[in-house]
Amino acid sequence: MPDRRFFSRSEPKALADLAALTGSTVPAGMDPQFMVEDVSPLDHAGPRDLSFLDNVRYKDQFRVSKAGVCVVNPDMAQEAPSGMLLLLNREPYKAYARIAQAFYPQRMPAPFVSKSAYIATGVKIGGGCVIEDGAVIGRGAEIGEGSWIGANVVIGENVVVGSHCQIGANAVISYSLIGDHVCIYPGCCIGQDGFGFAIDSAGHVKVPQLGRVLIEDHVQIGANTTIDRGSGPDTVIGQGTWIDNLVQIGHNVKIGKGCVIAGQVGISGSTILEDYVVMAGQVGIAGHLRIGKGARIAGKSGVLRDVPAGEEQMGYPALPLRAFMRQIATLNRMIKKDKS
Amino acid sequence: MPDRRFFSRSEPKALADLAALTGSTVPAGMDPQFMVEDVSPLDHAGPRDLSFLDNVRYKDQFRVSKAGVCVVNPDMAQEAPSGMLLLLNREPYKAYARIAQAFYPQRMPAPFVSKSAYIATGVKIGGGCVIEDGAVIGRGAEIGEGSWIGANVVIGENVVVGSHCQIGANAVISYSLIGDHVCIYPGCCIGQDGFGFAIDSAGHVKVPQLGRVLIEDHVQIGANTTIDRGSGPDTVIGQGTWIDNLVQIGHNVKIGKGCVIAGQVGISGSTILEDYVVMAGQVGIAGHLRIGKGARIAGKSGVLRDVPAGEEQMGYPALPLRAFMRQIATLNRMIKKDKS
Amino acid sequence: MPDRRFFSRSEPKALADLAALTGSTVPAGMDPQFMVEDVSPLDHAGPRDLSFLDNVRYKDQFRVSKAGVCVVNPDMAQEAPSGMLLLLNREPYKAYARIAQAFYPQRMPAPFVSKSAYIATGVKIGGGCVIEDGAVIGRGAEIGEGSWIGANVVIGENVVVGSHCQIGANAVISYSLIGDHVCIYPGCCIGQDGFGFAIDSAGHVKVPQLGRVLIEDHVQIGANTTIDRGSGPDTVIGQGTWIDNLVQIGHNVKIGKGCVIAGQVGISGSTILEDYVVMAGQVGIAGHLRIGKGARIAGKSGVLRDVPAGEEQMGYPALPLRAFMRQIATLNRMIKKDKS
Repeated sequence: MPDRRFFSRSEPKALADLAALTGSTVPAGMDPQFMVEDVSPLDHAGPRDLSFLDNVRYKDQFRVSKAGVCVVNPDMAQEAPSGMLLLLNREPYKAYARIAQAFYPQRMPAPFVSKSAYIATGVKIGGGCVIEDGAVIGRGAEIGEGSWIGANVVIGENVVVGSHCQIGANAVISYSLIGDHVCIYPGCCIGQDGFGFAIDSAGHVKVPQLGRVLIEDHVQIGANTTIDRGSGPDTVIGQGTWIDNLVQIGHNVKIGKGCVIAGQVGISGSTILEDYVVMAGQVGIAGHLRIGKGARIAGKSGVLRDVPAGEEQMGYPALPLRAFMRQIATLNRMIKKDKS
Repeated sequence: MPDRRFFSRSEPKALADLAALTGSTVPAGMDPQFMVEDVSPLDHAGPRDLSFLDNVRYKDQFRVSKAGVCVVNPDMAQEAPSGMLLLLNREPYKAYARIAQAFYPQRMPAPFVSKSAYIATGVKIGGGCVIEDGAVIGRGAEIGEGSWIGANVVIGENVVVGSHCQIGANAVISYSLIGDHVCIYPGCCIGQDGFGFAIDSAGHVKVPQLGRVLIEDHVQIGANTTIDRGSGPDTVIGQGTWIDNLVQIGHNVKIGKGCVIAGQVGISGSTILEDYVVMAGQVGIAGHLRIGKGARIAGKSGVLRDVPAGEEQMGYPALPLRAFMRQIATLNRMIKKDKS
Repeated sequence: MPDRRFFSRSEPKALADLAALTGSTVPAGMDPQFMVEDVSPLDHAGPRDLSFLDNVRYKDQFRVSKAGVCVVNPDMAQEAPSGMLLLLNREPYKAYARIAQAFYPQRMPAPFVSKSAYIATGVKIGGGCVIEDGAVIGRGAEIGEGSWIGANVVIGENVVVGSHCQIGANAVISYSLIGDHVCIYPGCCIGQDGFGFAIDSAGHVKVPQLGRVLIEDHVQIGANTTIDRGSGPDTVIGQGTWIDNLVQIGHNVKIGKGCVIAGQVGISGSTILEDYVVMAGQVGIAGHLRIGKGARIAGKSGVLRDVPAGEEQMGYPALPLRAFMRQIATLNRMIKKDKS
């Protein structure tokens, strides 16, 4: 049961309603009026809790789980412990996500603007906003309705933040235009100068960074991530892209829609990610590349060339996944021969 | 000599007292009443300073050091320059650490709560605390006695910070329960949402993150490190674990006791580290793995599978250390053949 | 055209003046009195804009660019579209940098010290400084003339910041002596304790960190980068070195003059970089190494040994570039044989 100090739960819900909410099926013979009270992981769930099985690694936990209800792929239904109610769904994790959102809707404090926030004269703040203590908002900035600016956030001059955004504590945003429903986590730095200079042994010569950061709607950006503004072109984060913690995004990078960028990834300047690219943790991408639509890059890969659309790559330097696997296999055979 | 602007030293100490403090031996014929005035690196130490030799790379510096006293392993005693006094100890670095602590005890400012900190009504603050300017502490939070909350720190609602903790400037902590004697460095972000969502091309679906971050006693967490709260289970950092700067720890990760996690390591969600695991810099660990007790992972390794207790691994993908070495050796031989 | 909300441009400039400023040549037959109004990337530039071609990847953009003027290497002049004016320069990017600086000189707000900054009594602040809202400056600190301290910055006791420095919002600086014309980006943490302790299963023993961070003139340090202070010796960043975002620099590291350290690089404790070393993104360097003058390390390399001056290295573990290339080539041949 989530800690009541931090999370407040909504009322119980009937299994049938949760099935309707998620497009799931209640198997014949199971009670659609069963009332679910909470969501919980498989190994902690009790008889009134709903859990889910998505990753087969957790199948053994599933088999002995005491969860009253579980969302599972139909293929797994026969593995359920006896007495467990089921919601059958081909995408159990997504169904669980919607159910958990229903039990724990995101709540925002009542609108208020702290008297100890430092808001320049003329800043436009929409209705329903929360501006917490110590936030600093520069001249000419605009904050859309229903946005929540955390404590000690610093928003630079003329920055535009859309409506229903959430800017985590101590984030710093400058030279940026941010859409609606954008969530920026604590400690992010967005819009500072890119790493642009001409190398010179008498002292590197700075290139003025004259672009912006454009963040489209529904983007999420993790804690302590850094996104440099463009050098002339803009840096762009496309609609619905999710970026994890401690990611570095260089100047002029364009990221398409719906991409997923895991923790500690680094994307060098002027590289383009088309839509729906997925990068696992610690991937590094050289500059001036194009990563095709739907490409998937395995964790810690180092990408030095363009990646075709839809391709999976891994390695350093990164290769198509099959070539990487073959490389490993060959190496293993060589080692065996070498020993014998 | 440490810069007196930043560090204040306690009184001189007799060699015999330092030997007693650290379980070291003063070799026969050396004066146990010799007064040591300060600690200093080998290459800067003078005749009243105590230094240490731990890493054999610095043996040449040791041989010509002007340090009055040096803590060394007994094996190295015969390498000492003539006239140098010695403290013999099988763990010279640990002995040096205790001596340096005695000369430079950690000092805390006199208790005070800044009037320009923003402390919600009802926050419990123990005796002897320091709360610096601009710190923001949310409703329901508790700060144990003798803790030091740095300038512009943001502590979220209902967070519990134990006694004798130190929270560095501009850190952001939410959804967390923190033990005693915990040191969190500046810029850390702890307790924000994990990277949890179901991928969907129509817009990824956020999974509410309903767990906490539990930090046990005597933990240290480096600057700008990020630790996400659990998604349902908690994220846990075990007693006495030390974490360096810019580390990313995903949701539901459990780290055991006494682990050492160097800079820029990334640990993906739901991975378990048993006690006393050591990871060098930039290691990446995939999610849902178990890293056995006392395992040691070399710098920049990419770990894709469970690691047995006590095993050393290196590589990308990581292998047991001997296998990694053999891989390198084989590759080198192949290259030679290939050329000839 | 840069967004006028964020960037303000100076007056138009004659081609002849821009040639003089940068040591460039206007080819015979082109009008040296042509007035340039702005700078712009090749693919956005119009007939009154100046652009540049440096990276041959962008040659096709150059051939069809509508830029009125372009700075190019003389070798590329014959590729210019008809009607385009040229500035010929062997270092077009550096020439462009100087021209862009002339059009967009860095502007600083009028001097002011916010009443909502928390400045300890006795802090010395030079003439012409800007101290923004929420900044916290500890006892004994000194800020040189013309320096700009961003909002919510925290500067610890006795820290010295030179003249004409810029400290980005929410940066945290302690135990440091900083030269002139230093630019520290938002969210940096500089001067906290290094990761220094003796491992002990009963509880690691902290080694007091008694050194400082010394930052020489004209250094740039990127957003959310962390630099630990020395343990006894100092951590030193040499004159004119540029460091990108999310870089980790361990205690006692010495970085020479004019180095370039790209994003997410990690440099372990006590390593020395001689002058003009270049490291691409995500490089990791083990501790206690010496990286020779002018060495260049390719992205994501893991360096485990000293690197001779001038050498290029790549790989994990890093090898001289030719050896790395040979390794890849051999591996590819083995794979082909293995398949056949």
